Amino acid sequence: MKPVKLAILGLGTVGGGAVRLLQDNAAEIARRTGHEIQITHVGSRRARPDLSLEGIKLSDDLLDIAKQDDVDIVVEVIGGTTLAHDVVMTAIQHGKHVVTANKALLAEYGNEIFQAAEAAGVYVAFEAAVAGGIPIIKVLREGLSANRIEWLAGIINGTGNFILTEMREKGRAFEDVLAEAQALGYAEADPTFDVEGIDAAHKLTLLASLAFGIPLQFEKVYTEGITKLTAEDVTYAEELGYRIKHLGIAKRTDAGIELRVHPTLIPENRLIANVNGVKNAVLVQSNAVGSTLYYGSGAGAGPTASAIVADVVDLVRNFGNEGTGRVPHLAFQPDALHNTPILNADQMTTAYYLRLTAQDHPGVLADVTGILSRAGINIDAILQKSIQAKGNVPVIILTQPVLEATMNTAIRDIEALSAIEAPVVRIRLENLDG
Amino acid sequence: MKPVKLAILGLGTVGGGAVRLLQDNAAEIARRTGHEIQITHVGSRRARPDLSLEGIKLSDDLLDIAKQDDVDIVVEVIGGTTLAHDVVMTAIQHGKHVVTANKALLAEYGNEIFQAAEAAGVYVAFEAAVAGGIPIIKVLREGLSANRIEWLAGIINGTGNFILTEMREKGRAFEDVLAEAQALGYAEADPTFDVEGIDAAHKLTLLASLAFGIPLQFEKVYTEGITKLTAEDVTYAEELGYRIKHLGIAKRTDAGIELRVHPTLIPENRLIANVNGVKNAVLVQSNAVGSTLYYGSGAGAGPTASAIVADVVDLVRNFGNEGTGRVPHLAFQPDALHNTPILNADQMTTAYYLRLTAQDHPGVLADVTGILSRAGINIDAILQKSIQAKGNVPVIILTQPVLEATMNTAIRDIEALSAIEAPVVRIRLENLDG
Repeated sequence: MKPVKLAILGLGTVGGGAVRLLQDNAAEIARRTGHEIQITHVGSRRARPDLSLEGIKLSDDLLDIAKQDDVDIVVEVIGGTTLAHDVVMTAIQHGKHVVTANKALLAEYGNEIFQAAEAAGVYVAFEAAVAGGIPIIKVLREGLSANRIEWLAGIINGTGNFILTEMREKGRAFEDVLAEAQALGYAEADPTFDVEGIDAAHKLTLLASLAFGIPLQFEKVYTEGITKLTAEDVTYAEELGYRIKHLGIAKRTDAGIELRVHPTLIPENRLIANVNGVKNAVLVQSNAVGSTLYYGSGAGAGPTASAIVADVVDLVRNFGNEGTGRVPHLAFQPDALHNTPILNADQMTTAYYLRLTAQDHPGVLADVTGILSRAGINIDAILQKSIQAKGNVPVIILTQPVLEATMNTAIRDIEALSAIEAPVVRIRLENLDG
Repeated sequence: MKPVKLAILGLGTVGGGAVRLLQDNAAEIARRTGHEIQITHVGSRRARPDLSLEGIKLSDDLLDIAKQDDVDIVVEVIGGTTLAHDVVMTAIQHGKHVVTANKALLAEYGNEIFQAAEAAGVYVAFEAAVAGGIPIIKVLREGLSANRIEWLAGIINGTGNFILTEMREKGRAFEDVLAEAQALGYAEADPTFDVEGIDAAHKLTLLASLAFGIPLQFEKVYTEGITKLTAEDVTYAEELGYRIKHLGIAKRTDAGIELRVHPTLIPENRLIANVNGVKNAVLVQSNAVGSTLYYGSGAGAGPTASAIVADVVDLVRNFGNEGTGRVPHLAFQPDALHNTPILNADQMTTAYYLRLTAQDHPGVLADVTGILSRAGINIDAILQKSIQAKGNVPVIILTQPVLEATMNTAIRDIEALSAIEAPVVRIRLENLDG
């Protein structure tokens, strides 16, 4: 059979990893596909001497490569949302299939990109955009296709999970671990996307569309980072039997869909609570199969290339068939996407961990519990710690699920008490039971 | 578009579950496929009053249903390997696609069945045959298609895992928990397939073919059940930081492929060591993505139906395309399967947990460690317990990996020592590190 011709645009960690994987596993991949996969072009300002690029055309004109006749599939691994956007749209307009690892691009411009792809009869595959080598896109789009998906919760940023794991295991402060993560290459020099939850929000946007059949709506994701987490709260959570993880959560409710990224207490006996270091995991609750969990490496050259090349194999296996591929881009048929409302933060419902800094005198606890009780907020546990510096007492309260708007009012009332010395620390809590 | 016509043969737990799921999630499934899926026939001796079967033809002549014109896909959920075999072959010969949950049938007759399917240009899908609702077939066949898979290890029998979990958590004896599992409906009246590892060996046969691209070779799986495990060994394992799980393991080595089902000590901090109760999980080690793990419900009406209907959706999404489906039955192209040798037990390499029942006098330990040392077997840990009844001392030894033939000889020599009072208990140990 004719070899399938690939252009790899971007020769950084991921692009280089894809080149290497296609070469190293060429025999195994050909056994699976029945086709030879040939890299005809790489797009990069310079070659990489550590890669074998013999016989492959090298150019820094990425838009030009995306138009070439000897290209069936364009692999976009340059990142960003400007040149990447133009390259992907050009490839689509020239009838090329696209494989991309670019979550920011798809979360922000995916509706436009997938529409163009449908119109052009090509496919834009993006397994590598979420949770690296874990085939979670395929699982949601195909493996769980018989299910109505109720919710999903994922550790989908490895840098954040590494930081939280170190904070818990070694009692270290956030800034301290972040500096180490940067030194190790886990975190970027500008770590904003990772630690402020933006990267996770991009990925959650994609997962939520696939799970529920809704358009991509990155701008509606409630996003809270891990920069304000203290070692103190990590320790108190642990005393109460919980771990704090930075989760992306997408959940159906009667009122609409919750899309949120935030630090979350989860019971320590949940499998996902024990996913540590830079690993990723996604827990999916569906109406037929119940809970399933998918775990693995969410980043790095090998895992990301694994997902990119799996997408290439999927495309190759579909060659000779009609249309834009068996599986709709966003899991549901384009005309079957629903405009289910996405809830704003006030409308979301979760349980809470509250930490109060209270003066050590009688009556404070009665005042606080009175406020919660009048707001209809049920308390699951209270932990009062011994007196700290300045004579204050930390009081930790775990609540049952409550509407965020209700909790906001209650917290304002608690903070107005004269015996409360500092803003209330709040962290959301999810039981994640099936 | 034309509705897709389904015959469901077998109306037991799984067949009934599939009917119900197709009806309950009809809207969600149609949104994903763009087709209506219509059940035209059910094959069963009697209707089930708890199901809505209006407009569906009911017959107990399963072979006849498999030939009908108003059937595109035959779902075989009758089980067994006699009538099921004939039904599947008849369906194939009449140009119907087949979806089956029948691991015994495929493990024993799969080579013949897939060959017939290739010849007839139809597809035999079997996601439900392994690990219930966990889409592990799709993961191996498609999600990890870029990888050379090195090994996999799975908890793929829920009944066995339930029994081991109860033994560990409550210190109960095997027979005691088995009786409860039977009362709860987790175990059959004749539990042989579950507790002797035959069911797991069927599933491992399928997983190994998909992972390595080898023909199905059920008869070559080394299979050991959990019936001889004692609460004592479960406890000692735990003292040493291990859990005992009944694993199906498929592993490439330079000499060939190991296929084995047996109780296995694994480090307690591995995620898979914390998969409890009737849940299933499969850990896959591949050369690009590294370790990934897939977890969920391995049995029951909902999870099994989830996998069956996912296969139906896959087939429907492929309709209008040529040939027998995008993805080869056994993950690799039929002409690319390798006849890599399957090793026999003597040729396999694992670490070991050994429990010796020794007389309490000096010199015994020196004799035992001398035998191991002369055989080139390295010791990782020794645990000597206090004196038991009859004045004997249990001695637990953890070894490093060693060829099984070597260990057999060493154990024979140890048992020949006059101070060793009972046969050596041996349980294999795997570190499962990536």
